[in-house]
Amino acid sequence: MYILGIDGGGTKTICAAARADGEILGRGMAGPANYLKEGLYTAKMSLTEAVEKALDAGKADREAVVVVCAGLAGVGRLNDRLIMKRIFAEICPNAQLILDTDAFITLIGATEYQPGLVVISGTGSIAMGLNDKGETARAGGWGHILGDEGSGYDIARRGLMAALHAHDGRGPETVIRQKVMEQFYLTSVEELISLLYGADTTPRRIAGIYPIILEAAEEGDEVAGQLLENAATSLVQAALAVIRKLKMEDKIFPVAVSGGVFRNSVKMCSTFQRILTGKIAGAHLIEPRHPPEVGALLVAREALAKAG
Amino acid sequence: MYILGIDGGGTKTICAAARADGEILGRGMAGPANYLKEGLYTAKMSLTEAVEKALDAGKADREAVVVVCAGLAGVGRLNDRLIMKRIFAEICPNAQLILDTDAFITLIGATEYQPGLVVISGTGSIAMGLNDKGETARAGGWGHILGDEGSGYDIARRGLMAALHAHDGRGPETVIRQKVMEQFYLTSVEELISLLYGADTTPRRIAGIYPIILEAAEEGDEVAGQLLENAATSLVQAALAVIRKLKMEDKIFPVAVSGGVFRNSVKMCSTFQRILTGKIAGAHLIEPRHPPEVGALLVAREALAKAG
Repeated sequence: MYILGIDGGGTKTICAAARADGEILGRGMAGPANYLKEGLYTAKMSLTEAVEKALDAGKADREAVVVVCAGLAGVGRLNDRLIMKRIFAEICPNAQLILDTDAFITLIGATEYQPGLVVISGTGSIAMGLNDKGETARAGGWGHILGDEGSGYDIARRGLMAALHAHDGRGPETVIRQKVMEQFYLTSVEELISLLYGADTTPRRIAGIYPIILEAAEEGDEVAGQLLENAATSLVQAALAVIRKLKMEDKIFPVAVSGGVFRNSVKMCSTFQRILTGKIAGAHLIEPRHPPEVGALLVAREALAKAG
Repeated sequence: MYILGIDGGGTKTICAAARADGEILGRGMAGPANYLKEGLYTAKMSLTEAVEKALDAGKADREAVVVVCAGLAGVGRLNDRLIMKRIFAEICPNAQLILDTDAFITLIGATEYQPGLVVISGTGSIAMGLNDKGETARAGGWGHILGDEGSGYDIARRGLMAALHAHDGRGPETVIRQKVMEQFYLTSVEELISLLYGADTTPRRIAGIYPIILEAAEEGDEVAGQLLENAATSLVQAALAVIRKLKMEDKIFPVAVSGGVFRNSVKMCSTFQRILTGKIAGAHLIEPRHPPEVGALLVAREALAKAG
């Protein structure tokens, strides 16, 4: 009997395979599994490849898998979930399937099912929490057009806007302007506009400008520093909404931070911590205890324990 | 001898035909002329149709046109301009062509070449001005990803974000939330997200939600009222940048407002006026004296006068 934990995201899919007692046998990695963006065929190939690699490491076969927990982006609607169920029925025909969001498995991995929060800021952003009654709540995560405040995309977009404000006289000068021009070998702002409105411009590509803003802030650029401060404030706002919904204002609990915006910056982590603990004294920052695919394994193990 | 003024935008193209002395013979309207979005074939068809309809009204033919001024979106780069020159060489083979931005011809139409500004807020937004030395300056207009602050798109997007903040506990309740759900016959926020991230979601479509925000503000919704106040502040910020660049801070001059955001709302116009005149006492709001295609005609007539 084996269980699988899967973290299927927009760029890569990671599967962890374990024995029923939770001992990890191996991991497998493959391409993106977001079927809304990549199409069904690619999603199925990625999931199959990640599962096979993880099981190969333990010389286990797919028929022996009894529970799969997959945290996937883009499976919010019932129809999406039915499609995923069909795919997994072929990959692991004898397994019970638990489908949840990537945010949920990240939370469970980060806190090991203990009450607490995870605040994720990568290309997008979301906050999710669990209280001592087992209730969960989320805030944010509505995507790059309508949300993702404090994400790499959001910070980069605002940084580019600040550079344009400096250019056309609406705002103070900032080194972001020059750094962006140099990074893309540009000679005019119009070239930047053409570049960023091209057909191949994705939120991820724009979020790729985040390190420039970070570098500018670390060199003391005031505009860039303010952007990071605002982003941290937005992420705290999302955390606070979750804390209030879960009635955890007066509790002591960990808040794990995850994603590229935090990972690449001590400054971002400390700014977030300062603003958060100023509002909720009992919230203390931690590194996630386990990665998301292990969070998914923990969920799978819980389900197995309940079933058995 | 005839002259043409053309306003070629993202949804429609309008051409005004006039005699050399400026007397308007007729107007013609056709589809969109933005070749970057619609393709060369559509752009050329739209321009040809608008020109022919305008000339037909005056029983004039295309060979007799001596100057064409076209204000077009999306002709910022040299290559775009060369392509447009080739198109117009076929439409009006004997005419001198003046290519400029849609903002510039709107400005000239609005102020009749007198010192002043135009602030345009429709799907996008931009401010442009002309001083008594004949210098021009602009601010804003960098498109929906990197700018267009205070535009219909920007207001609608922020309104949707406020509705989502109310939904997930990050912000105060607002009637925008219910109004949007009703407008689209939705039963859950997840459906709204699916709808707005669909492949056919354009900035224009999102900007179409602006009337909901306006209605909410007029009914006294505080969140919606604040969104309009912030939008007006952003548009004033763009106007101020232009005023400073043109050294008009101490002058008396008109500021014309244009575009759907202003046209549909006395509240928006009065808010903009209050914030602007609080900063620049000599700026007074006006309606544009002429529409953009007549602005283009004025530019064409100037060119003819200089040539002759």
